[in-house]
Amino acid sequence: MLKIKHKSDIEIAQEAPIKPIQEIFGDLDILEDEIEYYGKYKAKISLEFLNRVKTKPDGKVILVTAINPTPAGEGKSTVTVGLGQALNLLKKKAVIAMREPSLGPTMGIKGGAAGGGYSQVIPMEEINLHFTGDIHAITTANNALSALIDNHIHQGNECQIDPRRITWKRVLDLNDRALRNVVIGLGGPANGTPREDHFDITVASEIMAILCLASDLDDLNKRLSKIVVGFSYEREPVTVGDLGYEGALTLLLKDALKPNLVQTLEHTPAIIHGGPFANIAHGCNSLLGTKMAAKLGDYVVTEAGFGADLGAEKFLHIKTRAGEFSPAAVVIVATVRALKMHGGVPKDKLGISNKDAMLAGAENLAKHIESIESFGLPYVVAVNRFVTDSEEETDALMKWCGEHSHPAALTEVWEKGGAGGIELAEKVLETIGHTENHFDYLYDLNDSIKDKIEKVAKSVYGAKGVDFSSKALKQVKEFEQFGWSNLPICMAKTQYSLSDQPELLGRPKDFTLTIRELKPSIGAGFLVCLTGDIMTMPGLPKKPAALSMSVDENGKARGLF
Amino acid sequence: MLKIKHKSDIEIAQEAPIKPIQEIFGDLDILEDEIEYYGKYKAKISLEFLNRVKTKPDGKVILVTAINPTPAGEGKSTVTVGLGQALNLLKKKAVIAMREPSLGPTMGIKGGAAGGGYSQVIPMEEINLHFTGDIHAITTANNALSALIDNHIHQGNECQIDPRRITWKRVLDLNDRALRNVVIGLGGPANGTPREDHFDITVASEIMAILCLASDLDDLNKRLSKIVVGFSYEREPVTVGDLGYEGALTLLLKDALKPNLVQTLEHTPAIIHGGPFANIAHGCNSLLGTKMAAKLGDYVVTEAGFGADLGAEKFLHIKTRAGEFSPAAVVIVATVRALKMHGGVPKDKLGISNKDAMLAGAENLAKHIESIESFGLPYVVAVNRFVTDSEEETDALMKWCGEHSHPAALTEVWEKGGAGGIELAEKVLETIGHTENHFDYLYDLNDSIKDKIEKVAKSVYGAKGVDFSSKALKQVKEFEQFGWSNLPICMAKTQYSLSDQPELLGRPKDFTLTIRELKPSIGAGFLVCLTGDIMTMPGLPKKPAALSMSVDENGKARGLF
Repeated sequence: MLKIKHKSDIEIAQEAPIKPIQEIFGDLDILEDEIEYYGKYKAKISLEFLNRVKTKPDGKVILVTAINPTPAGEGKSTVTVGLGQALNLLKKKAVIAMREPSLGPTMGIKGGAAGGGYSQVIPMEEINLHFTGDIHAITTANNALSALIDNHIHQGNECQIDPRRITWKRVLDLNDRALRNVVIGLGGPANGTPREDHFDITVASEIMAILCLASDLDDLNKRLSKIVVGFSYEREPVTVGDLGYEGALTLLLKDALKPNLVQTLEHTPAIIHGGPFANIAHGCNSLLGTKMAAKLGDYVVTEAGFGADLGAEKFLHIKTRAGEFSPAAVVIVATVRALKMHGGVPKDKLGISNKDAMLAGAENLAKHIESIESFGLPYVVAVNRFVTDSEEETDALMKWCGEHSHPAALTEVWEKGGAGGIELAEKVLETIGHTENHFDYLYDLNDSIKDKIEKVAKSVYGAKGVDFSSKALKQVKEFEQFGWSNLPICMAKTQYSLSDQPELLGRPKDFTLTIRELKPSIGAGFLVCLTGDIMTMPGLPKKPAALSMSVDENGKARGLF
Repeated sequence: MLKIKHKSDIEIAQEAPIKPIQEIFGDLDILEDEIEYYGKYKAKISLEFLNRVKTKPDGKVILVTAINPTPAGEGKSTVTVGLGQALNLLKKKAVIAMREPSLGPTMGIKGGAAGGGYSQVIPMEEINLHFTGDIHAITTANNALSALIDNHIHQGNECQIDPRRITWKRVLDLNDRALRNVVIGLGGPANGTPREDHFDITVASEIMAILCLASDLDDLNKRLSKIVVGFSYEREPVTVGDLGYEGALTLLLKDALKPNLVQTLEHTPAIIHGGPFANIAHGCNSLLGTKMAAKLGDYVVTEAGFGADLGAEKFLHIKTRAGEFSPAAVVIVATVRALKMHGGVPKDKLGISNKDAMLAGAENLAKHIESIESFGLPYVVAVNRFVTDSEEETDALMKWCGEHSHPAALTEVWEKGGAGGIELAEKVLETIGHTENHFDYLYDLNDSIKDKIEKVAKSVYGAKGVDFSSKALKQVKEFEQFGWSNLPICMAKTQYSLSDQPELLGRPKDFTLTIRELKPSIGAGFLVCLTGDIMTMPGLPKKPAALSMSVDENGKARGLF
């Protein structure tokens, strides 16, 4: 049996020997001139690096995704870090590419966003707080645009923006429910035009999605200019380009566009850059970060938010299209605990061994495997072992994989770091070497908006059909008129179910997906399709984590995770 | 005659050869371990440096202040940088300590905040944009506190905060008039408690003033806990310490507390750290920045916001008290143009030589000199020459100084860099060497609140008396009851006049100062005394500077100043 380690993530992270970041660079093909240090353990890589190594062949991209998440947790980020470490133990040159965490939730609920246990990226406290300022730059650019829009209206409103139809929201990188719905511009004529506004958390800003899909500074500028900020009195879209603010926004973001390099606990290089929401955006780290990782390593281990129905689908339909690349293999993370929940076990009974419920819940995993197969991609199931799993359960799950001919490996990366991911790494290498890759999209960009939605709903979610609200139908027509119909779609759906109903666990069938509303993210380059209320500004709990945070006499963070 | 150079500040700054920041460190007594690089040309200095050099004697602090500013400009920051450069040309080890600029105004009106011409700090565009993220950290800490306050009320309001009496405002580092007056918490019970709120620009946050007066991490934590966020239903003050959030705020600010090192165009070391408002706060760069500069150099050249009536008075009464140090000398910057305005010349006639008006306006300078003398400090007048000044005017002003026995020097630092400040530097060194320094405060901390205000109004402004509004009188009583009466005062007054009426130029007499309202900044450690409406959230102009900004194909900023 595995032993339970009582150290917290931050204790493990702070006790770990960390190398100066130049030692991590030392093993990589980067010139001193292409590096910008941010403190001793973080650095940005200049975009000139990508120009220099343009002709170098790309490393193989391994996408880590998962079953539908449950409150029981799957450890997808931990497996991503652990797999990268394991590949390096096998003497393969692997680089990890992950999202950077939002600071907002940190103040609310304990829980790191940079792996866990002995598979973490470090310096963990810096990554989870201000890091290299990328998210602050996005907050600033987003809110500068808001200020410029309100100023445009205040100063004569040349573009005839209808203050009732401004869709651009302000943002803060905080959990702050009191800012979800606000009225601004009060106090008389000197203080602007009163109107309703809303604050989202910064990672929900379209600018975050744009930063993560831009291929260079010029593309960033073009995408920013395409942002639709609202509609005119004539109901025509008004863009950033119409207002002339794209240059200023590009200037505010020019350093944030450069990917950040850090290391794992085992000194595996990790590029941590960008972190868009996985519902109203595509939920993957930056394209530039992934591209750099592919130039630096022979293998890139990267992840996408939520389960494969959202994260992998968008990675494959949105990110690989923007970046014109194919993944070499997909790792699908599953846990005994989460499968038991999908099999109907309530949360307080998860500690009890229940092989049969687990096998019933494996239907959720089966559907995600089918989806990845339908994209023509090789895959490996990672059974991410928790200390509370019984041997009977893990044996049964591995047996289930074997019976269905699913390549699978047990991982113990939280407990053992890279050493706990060797079996997975070997299986992934074998799969890449021996399985044919026929990667293709499930829909064509020229399909109609409705067809694209229906193809994803049926083939990825297993829905029997799609209902469109009258509002959504009206928007589909409008979007076609505005010339937006050939963009990929970005589904905003609950992450807890394959369906749009969070309580439908396992593998729901015979359900109809409801599209309530569309939202144009023209700068990011996709159409968001909302299936329900999507929370874009979280709140704080009754006892926020902030209450136990402090800095000790040596300047170290305390109470952070 | 001087020639007009047609290069803009940003052109001069971008064309200048810049040294890697480690070369600037190379000449200073800092260990590699005490440095944290932020890109190639910026670095933070660890607070451990101050511990190590504790017993080393401090360099001499030279405070640069000015006459009352006018739209004609005085070039106080430019003289500060130029004087530092000139001292280094004279082989004196000088370090500059200045405020870091707010990003908000950058988007609005062209105009750098890091010196000008050939007396600038560089990398200018980075200093004026995100720099090392200090202001973003303050924005985050300020707004995290707001979110925590609203969450406290939402979750049961254990501290009985009266939502109508919350004085803590949200902030953004932007010019955004539409956020001056807002209503938040709309949308029903799940979205907080509706209340009126206000956004200030970040540099007006009490947290900025706290960061600039804190002597170490522990003092930062203590000051944060003393912040008054509002009042309870029982009208008792509610502090951050009552709510238990000081540890989290300290954690968010621990890196921002470390001073930043950059260089001037002539590679003089410059510490740029902190930048509080000069009206509702004390308007000086951080105490830690000044202390570090004094350990690194034999001379520190530093400045304080606005004219001597606000900046120097607060530097001397608030900052030197917090830091327990004395300045060695004061430089008072004056220009022919600004003195002509004080002498009654309208703005559109400033190009015409007018010696008599200039001499009439010199009364403004005379009053500031008297004030500095009343503090017992040696001083030098810096006549900051503009290319449009006639020789007759500058000669007359120098003669006026001579007749009144005021040590004075002509400076041409915008045009000539350090070489244009040699005469000033020599005069300053001579003054420090030969004039006795009897530095003392003009009021005692044990004086009553009203006495402190009256002493400043009479001796620094030349007022004949002070009127208190009935609101202010009530607050004085309350503040005494709350035990706040032994704090220094921080006057919030127009910068354009010695009086509280901006149109009274020159040296107004026979005026009565009106105190309308007080504001407790208990964490910063002072009582703000408001004499009128003080703008704490600027707006954008009709054609904001943002419209002409861009990034060129080499990644360089364009259209910034």
